[in-house]
Amino acid sequence: MKALADNSAARGLEDDAAVIEIGGERLVLTHDTLVQGVHVREDEDPADIAWKLIAVNLSDLAAKGAQPVGVLVSHMLGDDDDRFAQGLGEILEAYDVPLLGGDTVRADGRRVWGCTAIGKASSITVPDRRGAQAGDAIYVTGVLGRAMLGMEERGSGSTNDLAYRRPQPLLAEGQSLAPLVSAMMDVSDGLLLDSWRMAQASRTCFEIEAVSIPAADPERREECMRWGDDYQLLFTMSDGNPLPVSATRIGTVLSGPPGLLLDGDMLTPEDGLGYRH
Amino acid sequence: MKALADNSAARGLEDDAAVIEIGGERLVLTHDTLVQGVHVREDEDPADIAWKLIAVNLSDLAAKGAQPVGVLVSHMLGDDDDRFAQGLGEILEAYDVPLLGGDTVRADGRRVWGCTAIGKASSITVPDRRGAQAGDAIYVTGVLGRAMLGMEERGSGSTNDLAYRRPQPLLAEGQSLAPLVSAMMDVSDGLLLDSWRMAQASRTCFEIEAVSIPAADPERREECMRWGDDYQLLFTMSDGNPLPVSATRIGTVLSGPPGLLLDGDMLTPEDGLGYRH
Repeated sequence: MKALADNSAARGLEDDAAVIEIGGERLVLTHDTLVQGVHVREDEDPADIAWKLIAVNLSDLAAKGAQPVGVLVSHMLGDDDDRFAQGLGEILEAYDVPLLGGDTVRADGRRVWGCTAIGKASSITVPDRRGAQAGDAIYVTGVLGRAMLGMEERGSGSTNDLAYRRPQPLLAEGQSLAPLVSAMMDVSDGLLLDSWRMAQASRTCFEIEAVSIPAADPERREECMRWGDDYQLLFTMSDGNPLPVSATRIGTVLSGPPGLLLDGDMLTPEDGLGYRH
Repeated sequence: MKALADNSAARGLEDDAAVIEIGGERLVLTHDTLVQGVHVREDEDPADIAWKLIAVNLSDLAAKGAQPVGVLVSHMLGDDDDRFAQGLGEILEAYDVPLLGGDTVRADGRRVWGCTAIGKASSITVPDRRGAQAGDAIYVTGVLGRAMLGMEERGSGSTNDLAYRRPQPLLAEGQSLAPLVSAMMDVSDGLLLDSWRMAQASRTCFEIEAVSIPAADPERREECMRWGDDYQLLFTMSDGNPLPVSATRIGTVLSGPPGLLLDGDMLTPEDGLGYRH
């Protein structure tokens, strides 16, 4: 896909959300596709699929400190369109996001859904994953591993079950953080993998201490660091600055070769840092 | 999918492109999904699929008189990603459209592609399919049925073959027409079906004469009126106004019950007006 990435002056299809300037506003645009059996389970409730489809895109807007303007949704019709419509309605109402349009298609086989979310940047500087500076502190919001535990507790109605089925995009937190951070992204594929990506994009070394990572189950800290779908915000900012939201310091940005130093060991994606797709 | 449509104040997933105001500019947003074996043939060259994916979305922008700002593309990876990237690069270069982002996914089975196109409205009034007025003349650009003939001549390199494989979105024509028309849409699903849709949306009756329709093969006029994929512009404007682009008058808008009157016969979609999906 090199040619696809080359075609864009600034970025490929897998990077940060796009930022464009229109009439003095900065628009943030993001697209995510979910595939049945790959990103969502075969037997997932379509209401939860719809929720997740929108949530993952709103989470990308959150990481840019953007306020949602609307979404376009691509839906592959099935036997359970009412459930899909219900979940879609629930999340759009919960976050007060208009459904601007989209497409419905009919096909047999594995189902695919797409969402494009459009937001307005709320801060003069729109954060991305490239800005971490040596000396910055590294933080993550919330607790990691809830979605992992939630998948195991599926259907129980527990906090973890809800975290898995109905992830909450951190829009307000992202808007508070955007003017203050040097780099920010949402943790969709596991904290370690996304930290490694931010370190690479920033050409810095991220030194992280495992014990400092807020794990939903401390006995399973290793798994919690690698599991995806938590949609917390990972960010860096000047050491010592006060935080506008609750977050946990997990390490420090160092100069030196880009990479991830976990408890003194240099890790790479080949070490199974997280979820790759 | 009624609930989906209800969720949007103005429109469902299958209507016109969305128009939103941002910083004094009107942005036009459209999304189309192509499914292998449904919208494109199983054995289609991925370069042609990429071209078509972008072209159908740019054609929606053309119908709004919008100038493209960029596209987001969702691509399901396969054995032939280089061909897809090549076709994508070709159309983006031909129409000078930036690739802003998107997503790539990996899954087996039937492949699915998505595109969201963003444009800036060039005219104060952004045309839609709802504005046709009794007394207006009905026009269509170009010739219909080329894509149909092209599918039969596939691989021949003929004009029709190119019309099928590499449809040309009429962006310049759309921008010239936008300030002058009372209603406009692109003809993607066949002239008769799309005329019926415009008549319904405008609460008027479209009186069309078959003999006036510019058919790529006059011997097969019936099929040419019903075949899709030509991406010409269908529009209405005050009778007698000069046209800024080359187009053929095919009928007149009447008051009275919404519908399509072809050579005096009231037709409905049950009469097989075109391609429904």
